[in-house]
Amino acid sequence: MTARTIDGRAIAAALRAELADRVAAAPVRPCLAVVVPTDDEGTAWYVRQLRRTAERLGVECRVIGPPVPAERLVAELTALSADPGVHGVLCQTPLPAGLTPVEVGLAIDVAKDVDGANPLSAGLLAAGAPAYAPATAAAVLAILRAEAVPLAGRHAVVVGRSTVVGRPAATLLLAQQATVTVCHSRTADLAEHTRRADVLVAAVGRAGLIGAAHVAPGAVVVDVGTNPTADGGLVGDVRTEEVAEVAAAITPVPGGVGPVTTAVLLSQVVAAATA
Amino acid sequence: MTARTIDGRAIAAALRAELADRVAAAPVRPCLAVVVPTDDEGTAWYVRQLRRTAERLGVECRVIGPPVPAERLVAELTALSADPGVHGVLCQTPLPAGLTPVEVGLAIDVAKDVDGANPLSAGLLAAGAPAYAPATAAAVLAILRAEAVPLAGRHAVVVGRSTVVGRPAATLLLAQQATVTVCHSRTADLAEHTRRADVLVAAVGRAGLIGAAHVAPGAVVVDVGTNPTADGGLVGDVRTEEVAEVAAAITPVPGGVGPVTTAVLLSQVVAAATA
Repeated sequence: MTARTIDGRAIAAALRAELADRVAAAPVRPCLAVVVPTDDEGTAWYVRQLRRTAERLGVECRVIGPPVPAERLVAELTALSADPGVHGVLCQTPLPAGLTPVEVGLAIDVAKDVDGANPLSAGLLAAGAPAYAPATAAAVLAILRAEAVPLAGRHAVVVGRSTVVGRPAATLLLAQQATVTVCHSRTADLAEHTRRADVLVAAVGRAGLIGAAHVAPGAVVVDVGTNPTADGGLVGDVRTEEVAEVAAAITPVPGGVGPVTTAVLLSQVVAAATA
Repeated sequence: MTARTIDGRAIAAALRAELADRVAAAPVRPCLAVVVPTDDEGTAWYVRQLRRTAERLGVECRVIGPPVPAERLVAELTALSADPGVHGVLCQTPLPAGLTPVEVGLAIDVAKDVDGANPLSAGLLAAGAPAYAPATAAAVLAILRAEAVPLAGRHAVVVGRSTVVGRPAATLLLAQQATVTVCHSRTADLAEHTRRADVLVAAVGRAGLIGAAHVAPGAVVVDVGTNPTADGGLVGDVRTEEVAEVAAAITPVPGGVGPVTTAVLLSQVVAAATA
């Protein structure tokens, strides 16, 4: 058996097509403000890509910085949160020294927090109240929905407990009535847990952590890892070829969660603009 | 084998003794405001108990209501949050019709949110930032700490996903480096999951849901359920006698999580007063 490769680019394209219609029908032009506090090549590349995708869909993308000095960052995010012309506010990492993700997230109004950076957004989501999840976590769910993977009553195992992926993915899976296990670096016998998963989400950032021995026959595997390789490439947390012999379906890296994340982020901007 | 019965009353007494010392050393007299929006016999009984325990420890307990009309409740909580003489603010359930727990929680300042009702408190906790957890969830952890139950790398299974117990208990267990599974009413084959737990937390509110077949030999079982019986008594979610034949240790109902919850709540008030 060889697993079906889940085509993240196709899922993203379908989301963008739907989004273009919503933008066309929107009474205002949605606007995303992207604050880039520090110089970082990867971030700069990502922001250029995001801006290009946004503008093709008719979403304005206002880029602030780099740099934005540490002492002005919170004020900048607060001002953008108060600006009626801005519908979504996103702050890129890495953050300047001396600022924590919590301090930065708290400066983004929940109604515009399209990447779920404010801890209040996380708390509201956990309480079942409306809020935006971090786009990467929401992309995991968008992929499972696009693939019609059943979740209610099924066992989802999330490897990784970051506030940007692991935890919010667990919250979203729980909201879909899955039984959810969160594993992490301190988990004893990781494979013992992951082998019980109907749906396995790998979000640790360790290249090739998950092998065939970690996966149950027929599981759906979503690989959130994006680990740079020595030759300038990108690999996931999953040994894809090996796991493909066991799993029913698997997202590749690149071309899996990544493109869907951008589409989901922009769909949250459009939702914020039309809320 | 018969499980050790965990003595919640003794753990609570030890916490109160420690607390009395902290109150005596505090530069101010800690003050908890308890808002009781609606008439309810169980709530009234609990508030009287809480007040008595608080005052014995030197913690002032200011009870507001019942009733507090729905249209004044948020303003009342906001005013207490702003009152420098009040260190902890607690709103009792049941809430008046038309108000959600989220709306009510948001009115309590995080610095005084000693029962973790504000979704921001939940989000901060999940992000590893300082905040108060709901006292019941914190009591589960206080019991495990008092019993020196190892958590790092162990598998904790929480049955129940409420915002007052199940979810915050999962967050706190994860912070102690446990691998955490959250089960709930939609979980397929509950026993299959719970039988894998080193630590099992039952917090569903269904009398006798957990039997011997749900528990691994040697597990530690914390029973958060408080289900009224026809004869005016109280039973937990766990069939205690049956499970005691399998588990290593178990909390009884009553006399387990309940008394510890009150002690933990007051310790959070003292922490808020001396922060």
